Amino acid sequence: MGEQIGTAVAGRLYYVPRTEFERVRALPADPVARTAVFADMCRLNALYMIARAGSGHIGSSFSSLDIVSWLVLEELRFPEPAGSGDGDLYFSSKGHDAPGYYSALIGAGRLDFELLHRLRRLDGLPGHPDVGTPGIVTNTGSLGMGISKAKGMVRASRLRGRRGRVFVMTGDGELQEGQFWESLLSAANDGLHEITAIVDHNTLQSDTFVAQVSDLGDLAGKLRAFGWYVDRCDGHDPAAFSAALARANAVVDRPKILIADTVKGRGVSFMEHTAMESDATLYRFHSGAPDSAAYTGAAQELIERVRRGLAALGAPAPVLEAVDRPASTAAAPQAQRLIPAYSQALLAAAAEEPRLVALDADLVLDTGLIPFRQAHPKRFIECGIAEQDMVSQAGGLALQGLLPVVHSFACFLTARANEQIYNNATERTRIIYVGSLAGVVPGGPGHSHQAVRDIAALGAVPGLDMLEPCNETEVAAAVAYAVHHAAGSCYLRLTSIPVETRFELPASYRLEPGRGTVLRQGRAAVVIGYGPVLLTEAMLAAERLSSERGREVTVVNLPWLNRVDLKWLRHLIADVRVVCTLDNHYVVGGQGDRVCTALAEAGISTRVLKLGVTDIPPCGTNAEVLRACGLDAASLAARIAAALG
Amino acid sequence: MGEQIGTAVAGRLYYVPRTEFERVRALPADPVARTAVFADMCRLNALYMIARAGSGHIGSSFSSLDIVSWLVLEELRFPEPAGSGDGDLYFSSKGHDAPGYYSALIGAGRLDFELLHRLRRLDGLPGHPDVGTPGIVTNTGSLGMGISKAKGMVRASRLRGRRGRVFVMTGDGELQEGQFWESLLSAANDGLHEITAIVDHNTLQSDTFVAQVSDLGDLAGKLRAFGWYVDRCDGHDPAAFSAALARANAVVDRPKILIADTVKGRGVSFMEHTAMESDATLYRFHSGAPDSAAYTGAAQELIERVRRGLAALGAPAPVLEAVDRPASTAAAPQAQRLIPAYSQALLAAAAEEPRLVALDADLVLDTGLIPFRQAHPKRFIECGIAEQDMVSQAGGLALQGLLPVVHSFACFLTARANEQIYNNATERTRIIYVGSLAGVVPGGPGHSHQAVRDIAALGAVPGLDMLEPCNETEVAAAVAYAVHHAAGSCYLRLTSIPVETRFELPASYRLEPGRGTVLRQGRAAVVIGYGPVLLTEAMLAAERLSSERGREVTVVNLPWLNRVDLKWLRHLIADVRVVCTLDNHYVVGGQGDRVCTALAEAGISTRVLKLGVTDIPPCGTNAEVLRACGLDAASLAARIAAALG
Repeated sequence: MGEQIGTAVAGRLYYVPRTEFERVRALPADPVARTAVFADMCRLNALYMIARAGSGHIGSSFSSLDIVSWLVLEELRFPEPAGSGDGDLYFSSKGHDAPGYYSALIGAGRLDFELLHRLRRLDGLPGHPDVGTPGIVTNTGSLGMGISKAKGMVRASRLRGRRGRVFVMTGDGELQEGQFWESLLSAANDGLHEITAIVDHNTLQSDTFVAQVSDLGDLAGKLRAFGWYVDRCDGHDPAAFSAALARANAVVDRPKILIADTVKGRGVSFMEHTAMESDATLYRFHSGAPDSAAYTGAAQELIERVRRGLAALGAPAPVLEAVDRPASTAAAPQAQRLIPAYSQALLAAAAEEPRLVALDADLVLDTGLIPFRQAHPKRFIECGIAEQDMVSQAGGLALQGLLPVVHSFACFLTARANEQIYNNATERTRIIYVGSLAGVVPGGPGHSHQAVRDIAALGAVPGLDMLEPCNETEVAAAVAYAVHHAAGSCYLRLTSIPVETRFELPASYRLEPGRGTVLRQGRAAVVIGYGPVLLTEAMLAAERLSSERGREVTVVNLPWLNRVDLKWLRHLIADVRVVCTLDNHYVVGGQGDRVCTALAEAGISTRVLKLGVTDIPPCGTNAEVLRACGLDAASLAARIAAALG
Repeated sequence: MGEQIGTAVAGRLYYVPRTEFERVRALPADPVARTAVFADMCRLNALYMIARAGSGHIGSSFSSLDIVSWLVLEELRFPEPAGSGDGDLYFSSKGHDAPGYYSALIGAGRLDFELLHRLRRLDGLPGHPDVGTPGIVTNTGSLGMGISKAKGMVRASRLRGRRGRVFVMTGDGELQEGQFWESLLSAANDGLHEITAIVDHNTLQSDTFVAQVSDLGDLAGKLRAFGWYVDRCDGHDPAAFSAALARANAVVDRPKILIADTVKGRGVSFMEHTAMESDATLYRFHSGAPDSAAYTGAAQELIERVRRGLAALGAPAPVLEAVDRPASTAAAPQAQRLIPAYSQALLAAAAEEPRLVALDADLVLDTGLIPFRQAHPKRFIECGIAEQDMVSQAGGLALQGLLPVVHSFACFLTARANEQIYNNATERTRIIYVGSLAGVVPGGPGHSHQAVRDIAALGAVPGLDMLEPCNETEVAAAVAYAVHHAAGSCYLRLTSIPVETRFELPASYRLEPGRGTVLRQGRAAVVIGYGPVLLTEAMLAAERLSSERGREVTVVNLPWLNRVDLKWLRHLIADVRVVCTLDNHYVVGGQGDRVCTALAEAGISTRVLKLGVTDIPPCGTNAEVLRACGLDAASLAARIAAALG
C-alpha cells in the first residue's frame, strides 16, 4: 500500500503509483502547472526505474522530461490504433532518454504501469527504444538517424493521404553526427513542415560539456543556414515551450527545429550539470546507476518537489509506493576488467612507440582513454560523436607516418565508419581500431549497443587482424601485438563488463598468430571460443557435462577472430567427433565461419556445431540475455550434449 | 613524330607530348596566361586518356582543370621525397576528376609521361586516385571523406613539427554527404588553418543539376555558420583564383574554403553544362567515354583553344601526337544487360504492389530508375548523395506501411549506410536494398567502386535474404521474389556491365530459396557461383578443362548469397571430390563461406576450393582485373585442375 513519504530511507526505492497519476491528470489546474508536477513525478519514476535496473541515463531523461511531459499531456494527438492512421508521432533520436519517455507514457496511462518495474529486463522496457514497446514508433540508440527517419514517416503519410505531425527529440551532442546535417537538406528543400525537431540543449554529451568535446558553435545560425525554421526557448518552462510550439505550428512551409535550453539532470540539485565545475572532467550521471546515497538523496529532493508542486495546485501530498533496493550486482574484486587493463596496456605501448596517437569519439571513460589523455595530452584527439570523421582522420594521420589507435563502441565504430575503415585499408597504412562494449552483453542497453555484427562487418577488410582477448593478461598481449608486431592494421574487440572468469591462461602463455590456448582438456568434443564471457560459460558448461553426464570436452581460447593456424587446428581436433564454435556474435560472419572454412579447405571431416547469436538479441540482464540466446552454461551444456548424442 | 594539327580526324586520338609542355612551362609569359594555356593542353590530354580508356569523368576533370593547373604550376610547394617532410599536399576528395589531375601532373613533369596512355589499365593510372601513384597522397572515390583526411594530415604535421598546407578539392554534389559537414566542426574549433578546401562549384552532380537533386541552398552561409573562412571566385580565371588564394593564405586562425564557380565540361562548347537545358534530365559527359564524333569535335575545339592561347603568348602552334582510336569495346547486342532488365522488373512489380516506393542517391541512370521515375513520379524519392539519410528514410517509410526499394552502387549502399541498414533490420520491417555495380568488374573505376565486400558487410544482418541474379531472366525472378514473396528484407546485388553469358537457364527454371541451377554437368568437381561474370568464366573454364584435360565439371548457378538448402547441396555434391566456390567478392564473407559452413554443420566431408578476391583488387580493364585476381577462365581452369590433382 502506498503512503506519504516524509523522508526517503536508504535501501528503499520509491515510485509514484498509477492512481496518483490519474489524480494529477484529473486536477482542474492550469496545464502548465500540472505538467510541471507531472514531469517531477515522472522524474521520480524514471529514477526508480534506473535504480532498480542498475543502469540507465538519468541526466538526459531529466533534462528532457518537462518537454516530453508537455508533448504527451497537451500536444500530441496519438494515432488511434484502429483509426484512419491520422495522428502525431513522437520519438527520441538519441534514445537514451528512454526512461523519461517511458515514465511519461506510463504516467499518462499509455503504457502498462507494471512495466515500470521492468526497465532493461527481458520482455520489459529496453534500454533504448524498440518498436516492440507500445508507443515507440522507431528504434533509436544509434545517434543522428532521427530526422531521416521522420522524413520517411512524413513522406509515407503524404503518399497515404494521412494527416499528422512528427516530433523528434534530439540531443545536442548528437548533432556532431554527420547524418544529422545530411538529413536537413532535403527536409528543407521538400518543405517537410510536418517535422518539428526539438534539441534537448543541455550542453553536455556523454563525457562532458559539448563545448569541450566538439563545440557546436552558432547552432541556430547553422540550422537557419540549412533552411529550417529555428526558435529557442527554455525547455524547463512548459509555458515557454508551448508558446514556441504554437509559433512553430503556424509555420507551414518549412521543417522546424526548437532549441530547448535545458539542464542535464534537471530536478535534483547535485545531478544538475550546473552544479559541476565548468572544467570538470566528467559528468557523473550520464549513464549507469546512482549509488544508494545518491539515489536516496535524489529521491528525497524529487519527492519534495512533487509535494510542493501539488501543494501549489491545492492538492494533497503524493502517496508513494516503495520496494527494497535490489542487492548490488557489482562484480567481485577478482573479476577480470578488460577496459582498465587496456588503459594500462595502451600506456605501456605508447611509451615505447612515439608515433602512437589515440582518437576518441566522446567515450573517453568507457573506452579507457583517460589515463592516456592525462599522460599524452598532445597525442590524444577528441573527435566528438563523429565516428566517420574520426576514422578518416586516422587515415590522414597514418598516411603521414603516425600510428593511430581509434576508439569507440564496437557497434558504432565498425558500422557507422564501415566505408571509411575500408578506404583506409586500401591505402595499406597501419591503424588500430579498438571496439569496446563488444558482444551480446551487457544486455541492458539493447540492440543498438549490442555489438554482435562487427566481426562480419569488417570480415572482408583485407590485411586486418581481428582479436578479442579473454582476460587482462591477453589484453596486454593483444595490444603489444597490434602496436609492435602486426604487419597491417588490427581490430581489437573488447568486452566491457567485468567478468569473474572460470579459467586461467597457463604460465607458458604466448600470443601466437592463429593459435589458441587449451583451457580444459577432454576427448568428447572441442569447444572453440573467445572473450571472457562465453569462455566462462563454456567452462561452466564443460563442468556440467563432466559432472552430470560424464562427458569431458576441451575448451579452447582462440583470440584470433579471422585467422586459424591449420596445423594447430588439425592437431587440436584430431580425435574428436564434434567441434563446437562459440561466437559472441551472430553465427554468420564470426569466428565459427573461419573455423568451418579452414576445415573445408583442408578437407577435414568433422561435424561442427556452430553456436552464437541467431536473431536480434533481446534486452535484459546479462543472465537473461545469455539464456535467451542459448549461450549460458546450462544451454551450452544441453546443446553440446545433444550434438554428442 | 608530332605535327601541327589543323583538323582533327575521326578515328584518331590526339595528345600534347612532353616536349610541348616543357616549352610552355618555359615561356617567359605571365603566369595567368600561361596557366590558361597549360590547362587547355591538359584538357586535351585528359580527353585523350578518357577516350583511350573508354571511360572516365570528362565534365569534372574539365571544370576543375584551371584550378588544378594553377595549384600545380604556381601554388603548391611539393614535398621533397628525401627532405624534411615540409611541403604542401593536394588531393581531390571527389576523386573522379583524376584524369584532369593526372594530366596536370604529367604536364608539369611530376608524373611519368608514358602513364598518359595507361588510364584505367593495370599498373597504369587508376580510375580513382590511389596512393600507389606518385603525387597521389590519399585514396579517394568514396565521397565526403576529404576534409577528414586533411585534418588527420594537418594534425600529423603539427605533431611531427612539419610545415605545409593541405589543399582539398571537393565537388559540390559531394557536399550532400553528411561526413563533409561532420568534418567541418572540429577543423574550425581547432583552428586548422593549414587546410584550404576548394569547392569545384560546377552546379552539377552525377545525374543533373545539384539544385534539382538536392539543392545546397545558401552554401556560403552554411559554411560560414560552421566557422570556416569562406570566399568565392571564378574558378576558370586563374587571376581571380590566385587572388582568392592569396586572401585565404593570409588567414591563419581558421580553415578556409573557396567556392570556385565553374562550368562542368569547361572548354568544349557542347560539353559545357551551360549548353544544357536547365530542365534536362541528364548531363551527358559526367562519366563514360565520348563517342567518336563527340571526341573528334571536342578535340578540335581544344586544339584551337590551345593554338589561340599560344598565339596570344607569341608562341607557335602546338605540335601534337596522335594514335588510332582503339576499336570499340561495346558489348554485343545479345549480351545480358541486367540494369535495363531490373528497370522493367521493378516497373512490373510496382504495377502490382502499390506500396512500393523507390529511393535513389543521385544514380538514377546507373541504377536503372529512369523508367520508374517516369511512370511513378510520386513514388520516386531522390535523396541526393546521402546514402545514410536515404536508408534511414526508407526505415521511416517502411514503419509507416510502405515497401521502400533503396538504390545505390553496392560499394556505397552497404558500407556508408551499414549501421542504418542494421537499425532498420532491428525494426523487422520489409525493405529491399538494390546494389548495382557489384563485383570486381568493371575494373576501371578502381577499388572505391569495386564492390567486393558488400556480402560480408551485410552478412550478419538478420532476416536479410541476399541474391545475385545471373541473367535478365533471373533478375525478373529475384525482383518478384523480393517484392512479393520474401518474408523479410532483401539485398539484390546486380552486375552492371553487359555480359555475353555462356550459359542459359533451363526452360523449367524456377527461383527456389537456397537452391541453384545446374548449368553444366560433370563428375570431377562442382563449381558453385553466381552472377553473369564469374559464371561465364566458370563455363569457359569448364570447356577448357574438358577439351584440354578431359575433366568434366559441374557448374552451378546459386543466386542465393546467404542461404543454402542442405538437401539440395548434399545431392549436388554426392559424388564429387572437390567443391569449388566462386565469389565475385572477397573469399572471406561471401557465398563460399556459407557453403563451407553448411558442409561443416552437416558433417559432410568434401574438400572445398574457395576462389574469389583475396587482396585489394587492382584497377584495369575487365579482362586485366579478372586475370590479376585469378578469376578469368584460364586461371580458374588451372586452379581447378591443380585441386583435382
